[in-house]
Amino acid sequence: MNSRPIPDATVGRLPIYLRALFDVLGDRGATISSETLARLSGVNAAQLRKDLSYLGTYGTRGVGYDVQYLMVQISRELGLTQDWPVAIIGFGNLGHALLNYKGFAERGFHVVAVFDTLKSKIGEKAGNLLVKHIDELTDVAGSQEIAIAIIATPAPAAQDVADRLVEARITSILNFAPCIINVPPEVSVRKVDLSMELQILSFYEQRTKESPPVNRAIKA
Amino acid sequence: MNSRPIPDATVGRLPIYLRALFDVLGDRGATISSETLARLSGVNAAQLRKDLSYLGTYGTRGVGYDVQYLMVQISRELGLTQDWPVAIIGFGNLGHALLNYKGFAERGFHVVAVFDTLKSKIGEKAGNLLVKHIDELTDVAGSQEIAIAIIATPAPAAQDVADRLVEARITSILNFAPCIINVPPEVSVRKVDLSMELQILSFYEQRTKESPPVNRAIKA
Repeated sequence: MNSRPIPDATVGRLPIYLRALFDVLGDRGATISSETLARLSGVNAAQLRKDLSYLGTYGTRGVGYDVQYLMVQISRELGLTQDWPVAIIGFGNLGHALLNYKGFAERGFHVVAVFDTLKSKIGEKAGNLLVKHIDELTDVAGSQEIAIAIIATPAPAAQDVADRLVEARITSILNFAPCIINVPPEVSVRKVDLSMELQILSFYEQRTKESPPVNRAIKA
Repeated sequence: MNSRPIPDATVGRLPIYLRALFDVLGDRGATISSETLARLSGVNAAQLRKDLSYLGTYGTRGVGYDVQYLMVQISRELGLTQDWPVAIIGFGNLGHALLNYKGFAERGFHVVAVFDTLKSKIGEKAGNLLVKHIDELTDVAGSQEIAIAIIATPAPAAQDVADRLVEARITSILNFAPCIINVPPEVSVRKVDLSMELQILSFYEQRTKESPPVNRAIKA
């Protein structure tokens, strides 16, 4: 592991690079230039090279980066070469969707417990699991060594759930509820805003409408 | 509207700045320093100032940016000051969750149509809407002026759906299916990977475990 600390902004971009590498794996050669990887990741090439230098990776001039090797390096840096037991709190539509989401297990995130508060949901089948009452959180978090919890409740319940997660000594929280939750500084929280990518689309859509290309003009 | 073209990477960061501004709105003053906004957004302050300069916004030395004004500016730039009619394709758990997601309407994204292929789902209530068969896509896309479609199907169905969206002259696609879809160059595609934020959490979680702080040590 590299001794130079990796800036938060770089950490935030590593999953983007990793996804781009996964996407090109197979249909391109064994190497990728910093320019191509940067373009696929939506950053400039200088930024990419600087980010990867924190991992001790510099590529080969005129050749680029070895795709497989770079994937392993980024995965290791992100902690994806180990399995992470994950809990989902809230078994509504979003909780169901997240439980069935193929992309988690591919990256080492395994849902090992699902919690809710609704009596009607407790004991319901959730894949190979049974939905547990959130009162069991501390016990299960300890026995299953859960490090990461996903809040998939409505916004009004999110802070109470966060407080219970902190009590249960869970140190990483992914919050899908559209609200801010407060936790002690030693707990990491990331918030998912599902509308972020839509906003990027609307930027380009607006531009298209301002200067319509031929096919749009024909349509109108 | 500014005449200097905004780089893609800057466009990608504008929703992050906007979210950070929404988060501070209310509990902070009317202005925000570039350092604070940069920290909340996970970028460095020089990057933030450069990004905002593309919007013709420079803040006031020693004061910072006016929060409300900056929100309006970014929103306008992203096309969020108008309403966007959106279609959801695939009414499984994810489709349900997206339909109920509060964060879309807040940003001007209104789901005006929901499609599926399963006979049992056609005609089912989806909020105020009824689920339609995907064969009706072209008609509905025209009459409802749908510009943006969200693919919420399983991966094997995603390419076929994308082909139908292109046929229906929809020019922006948000793909939640964990696979790559191919579309003509005039169509914009953004892919959502729900595991990206988990990867950032696992980075920090791994670091915590390598050098356990006091409270983790006590736990162990």
